Amino acid sequence: MNKETLVFGIYPVAEAIKAKNTIDKVYLQKGASNPKLEHIVKDLEDTNTTINYVPIEKLDKLCRSNHQGIVAIISPISFVSLEDIVESALSNDKTPLFLVLDQISDVRNFGAILRTAECTGVSAVIIQKKGGAPISGDTVKTSAGAIFNIPICKVDHIKDAIYYLQASGIKTVAATEKTEQTIYDINFKQSTAIIMGSEGTGVSKSVLNIVDDKASLPLLGKINSLNVSVACGAFLYEVIRQRLI
Amino acid sequence: MNKETLVFGIYPVAEAIKAKNTIDKVYLQKGASNPKLEHIVKDLEDTNTTINYVPIEKLDKLCRSNHQGIVAIISPISFVSLEDIVESALSNDKTPLFLVLDQISDVRNFGAILRTAECTGVSAVIIQKKGGAPISGDTVKTSAGAIFNIPICKVDHIKDAIYYLQASGIKTVAATEKTEQTIYDINFKQSTAIIMGSEGTGVSKSVLNIVDDKASLPLLGKINSLNVSVACGAFLYEVIRQRLI
Repeated sequence: MNKETLVFGIYPVAEAIKAKNTIDKVYLQKGASNPKLEHIVKDLEDTNTTINYVPIEKLDKLCRSNHQGIVAIISPISFVSLEDIVESALSNDKTPLFLVLDQISDVRNFGAILRTAECTGVSAVIIQKKGGAPISGDTVKTSAGAIFNIPICKVDHIKDAIYYLQASGIKTVAATEKTEQTIYDINFKQSTAIIMGSEGTGVSKSVLNIVDDKASLPLLGKINSLNVSVACGAFLYEVIRQRLI
Repeated sequence: MNKETLVFGIYPVAEAIKAKNTIDKVYLQKGASNPKLEHIVKDLEDTNTTINYVPIEKLDKLCRSNHQGIVAIISPISFVSLEDIVESALSNDKTPLFLVLDQISDVRNFGAILRTAECTGVSAVIIQKKGGAPISGDTVKTSAGAIFNIPICKVDHIKDAIYYLQASGIKTVAATEKTEQTIYDINFKQSTAIIMGSEGTGVSKSVLNIVDDKASLPLLGKINSLNVSVACGAFLYEVIRQRLI
């Protein structure tokens, strides 16, 4: 992890929150009792930031200086709001294409997906505040810098984001094996949001229940399991192909 | 690296060669002078195996036991010959699809590519004996087991393999940005071999000079650089699409 993305100590973290820095994750000392820490926790909970309660040894490992029981990881990038990015994409000449990541947990997959999204002209990548891979130095590296060139929205709940996209006239298509349709059966020429699920379990059931369409990639072998960043690339290039011809 | 794939000591390595085990790579102690080692080196050179001359510290790190100046990495898989796999693919009902890897050096990319190749029904993956990523425990892991389900050919020179494929009536298409054609301009319905190049430099110039066709993926962003395993997936799924419809 990049040293620059760490902020530690009670006042520095409080200042980071006040300055509206995007805090990716907070490590808090398990059992620490300090009214100032409790105040920070409340502020963090208001912004839906992930708080990890860890033993003091973990904090000492993260940062050699006096952390006072709290270490925050500041995101190296700034996020955009879903409302802003949908409005901006809809007012653009280009047909919008959103990519929604439902709990991608591997930082290298996350980075590779951001890289592909940037190369395929995706309007914005939408991730959930809790549960996904953190935006770490490794993410920046595997994204080949794409992370600084593509808008990223962090939403409280993927489901609410899907409802919002649908209400804005954007077709939502989930990548899943649980369908008879392949990507070649889907019309991607209209405004579309593609939803990719986690490495282990795919798109969550509650999301599958509300999307407009589901599509799979044909699998012709025995192992029947693609890497999620490769699958995402195949989806995005099918969109490109349909829109080019 | 899996411990099981290591063979060390003069007699064990000599036996592994005699038993026609596939040796992926050999680490030899720099400056070691022993007639038995020299004999092994000759045998290895006859089979075109990569020999790395390293300081004794490297050998000690690879293996704590008495290595006698030599450690061999035995491939966990067995390889097929190009002649056999071309003959078998041509006698099959399915239109042959070969994937040629020109010096992919990252083991995780190599594994992910094998996984995608298995999922897309690739007839065989062709790699060069020298220069590419070794088949290590990491390759096996990132391939999700695909490595045991897809034939792999190790050839002395990629160029000779391309000539052989062409002579067998197989169209060779290199993935490269150095062309005006995209994958959507290429007819993949006939027997095809796709050539993917290294992460750093792409398909080598001498290979680009002899292939039948070149094709790129449209890049709509600023960073203009896809991960090679993602690019490979987009190529292979375009082949699938054309052959399905």
